[in-house]
Amino acid sequence: MEADVKNVLGSVIIRFGGEIWIKKTWTRKLYEGRLVKNIKNVLKHYDVPYDKIVRRHSRLFLRTDSAMQASLELARIFGISSVSPSLETSSKLEKIIDRSVVLAGHVLKIGNSFAVKCRRVGKHSYSSADVCKVIGQRILDEFGEKMNLRVDLNNPDVGLGVEVRNDEAFVYSDTFDGVGGMPLGTQPRVVGLLSGGTDSAVACWMIMKRGCPVAPVYFDNTPFTDETTTGRALNVAGVLLDWAVGFPRNVYVVQHGENLKRIIENCSKKLTCLFCKRMMYRIAERVAEMKGAEGIVTGEAIGEQASQTITNLKVLSNAVKKYPIHRPLLGFDKSETEAIARRIGTYKISSRKAKGCKAVPSKPATKAKLEEVEESEENLNIKEMIERSIESLKVVKV
Amino acid sequence: MEADVKNVLGSVIIRFGGEIWIKKTWTRKLYEGRLVKNIKNVLKHYDVPYDKIVRRHSRLFLRTDSAMQASLELARIFGISSVSPSLETSSKLEKIIDRSVVLAGHVLKIGNSFAVKCRRVGKHSYSSADVCKVIGQRILDEFGEKMNLRVDLNNPDVGLGVEVRNDEAFVYSDTFDGVGGMPLGTQPRVVGLLSGGTDSAVACWMIMKRGCPVAPVYFDNTPFTDETTTGRALNVAGVLLDWAVGFPRNVYVVQHGENLKRIIENCSKKLTCLFCKRMMYRIAERVAEMKGAEGIVTGEAIGEQASQTITNLKVLSNAVKKYPIHRPLLGFDKSETEAIARRIGTYKISSRKAKGCKAVPSKPATKAKLEEVEESEENLNIKEMIERSIESLKVVKV
Repeated sequence: MEADVKNVLGSVIIRFGGEIWIKKTWTRKLYEGRLVKNIKNVLKHYDVPYDKIVRRHSRLFLRTDSAMQASLELARIFGISSVSPSLETSSKLEKIIDRSVVLAGHVLKIGNSFAVKCRRVGKHSYSSADVCKVIGQRILDEFGEKMNLRVDLNNPDVGLGVEVRNDEAFVYSDTFDGVGGMPLGTQPRVVGLLSGGTDSAVACWMIMKRGCPVAPVYFDNTPFTDETTTGRALNVAGVLLDWAVGFPRNVYVVQHGENLKRIIENCSKKLTCLFCKRMMYRIAERVAEMKGAEGIVTGEAIGEQASQTITNLKVLSNAVKKYPIHRPLLGFDKSETEAIARRIGTYKISSRKAKGCKAVPSKPATKAKLEEVEESEENLNIKEMIERSIESLKVVKV
Repeated sequence: MEADVKNVLGSVIIRFGGEIWIKKTWTRKLYEGRLVKNIKNVLKHYDVPYDKIVRRHSRLFLRTDSAMQASLELARIFGISSVSPSLETSSKLEKIIDRSVVLAGHVLKIGNSFAVKCRRVGKHSYSSADVCKVIGQRILDEFGEKMNLRVDLNNPDVGLGVEVRNDEAFVYSDTFDGVGGMPLGTQPRVVGLLSGGTDSAVACWMIMKRGCPVAPVYFDNTPFTDETTTGRALNVAGVLLDWAVGFPRNVYVVQHGENLKRIIENCSKKLTCLFCKRMMYRIAERVAEMKGAEGIVTGEAIGEQASQTITNLKVLSNAVKKYPIHRPLLGFDKSETEAIARRIGTYKISSRKAKGCKAVPSKPATKAKLEEVEESEENLNIKEMIERSIESLKVVKV
């Protein structure tokens, strides 16, 4: 879209997901209310000026002179399925035609094909088909010959959209896909185990997408890892929490190195990662209790690593009883997870060189037995380890 | 591709996912072995004749006169990332050129643009760039003028691929995407709660995709549902298990109506779905124990239904202690789940009209309290309900 079209735009059409729309009235109002609050937070945070947000049957409309900038920010808000920067006018046909011709003049290029589609709610003296036909004709009359334009309903270079809502109408040419999901905050908080790697960040994001704010917990394994690992995790957390404007930006950092040291000294080597993770789960459970969270999120995908075989996931889950372990990436291939990481902006940071954990054994068990794990854990003072870890807890603002 | 090209094809290049490839040698061999076994089962099941399957560094090659048919079936096998029906020849440059020109003659149409790309493993007297250049020129010499062909390296109508592997070479023009994942059977079995609706089938499929055979369990809620509901579930199970050729086609059907009746008579109405699901989980846990499965799969997505709020998922998970509840769709929007259902073939059946459960309350609780749930469950003889359900278990072959 040309730079000067920005000056004629005055509104953004905000569409939200079908899942919100089919909720019962009071739930839907609650969700819409939360969505509006989240939108206001984002616009304020990114200094996008606006006049007001208007709710209409299955849509929101944002009045703003910065419709393009607003649209790009809105497309990153959970619960929004798509947005279109648009020109607003009244539902009088002549006004709609006029605005459409103005927009067409800005966006059509020489030799382009175009199409007009119309969506209409309310009673009007014209049909949706009338709108398309008359606007198409008027654009051809105005620019057709000198710009060599033609109509192509199936695969146009430019698609002009018209939404008529009772007394109002909106004309647009661009639609940006949103990320979908549910407005953040419509579900209770969960705790997310965040390592700084690709998977855990995507797992947290997937859960946030369904409305749950995530409190990230990072386990600092120094001296088995170092400050590069910690730095990477905090950077990833920052990008992740950019998706949660208006929510806390706290990362809970647990000193886990001493726990890992004791595990290596006292337990079966090939099970090291399982003991380590079971301790992480237990500590995360305590953090969840302290912070009023309702579950624990991890980035495990079946079979991706030795500790993530379906047998080992069972042994891991067994370590905590009060809170479920939520693993939204269970069925994902690594390539699918990476594609999401790229989209949400964590991929580059997660791929940054950082010290890998030096405690990982060379031959990790893929089929651990719960009895064996529990027996070996008897060599640990688990209660004391949890207490010390919780005492070590630091809150880092990112 | 034209029908007569089938006659010249003699091989299929089978590519498998990067995740298998990066496993340690013995794990990779195990995975490759399972993949070959699954391929043989599928080819036998669909009566696709073939000569042999050859393993080469990061690829499998299938020798068959039915390369197109084989490719379409192979693209549905977990662990395969893509396949290309191809012409096989030796690595002598003149032979490769000859086969490329033959294939080009079959697949190029008048006015087409084309490109040649080459991948080479081993020592040869020519480079990959040589191969592309000389084949491109020879095709132009042969057909260029009379067919009005041109080379377009960036966006060709037809892309010809050449793979040279030591003494052998393969020439192809089509690549079909596979479903990726891990070969089925490389992970232990899990039990899958299958309702016949869209979500549970996709959830089971996602877990199968990562290598776990799934034993579907269907809970027959008659008289709150009826034979339309049961029929739909069994049909969905059939399509799902078409993805698991060579594995058992058993569906475990539990008579759950009596349980539901007692729940309605004795427990808090607004919590009905939670009591019902907690019973399902407990019974599934018993089935998992009986069948040597290592987990329980369900189709829940956060917030999709009242019973699936993050708070209620915690209450649900709490009903079983030995086996983890795996919920691969936790972070999915309904539209994302539906897209997968369409791809795997369950969508149409799952969308078929069936009697919805009549026991669902009009105002289900979205924030159940575990204490309240457990207190209300004291009115039930849970142990006896589980025993009776397990006794009612029927195995249906689909």
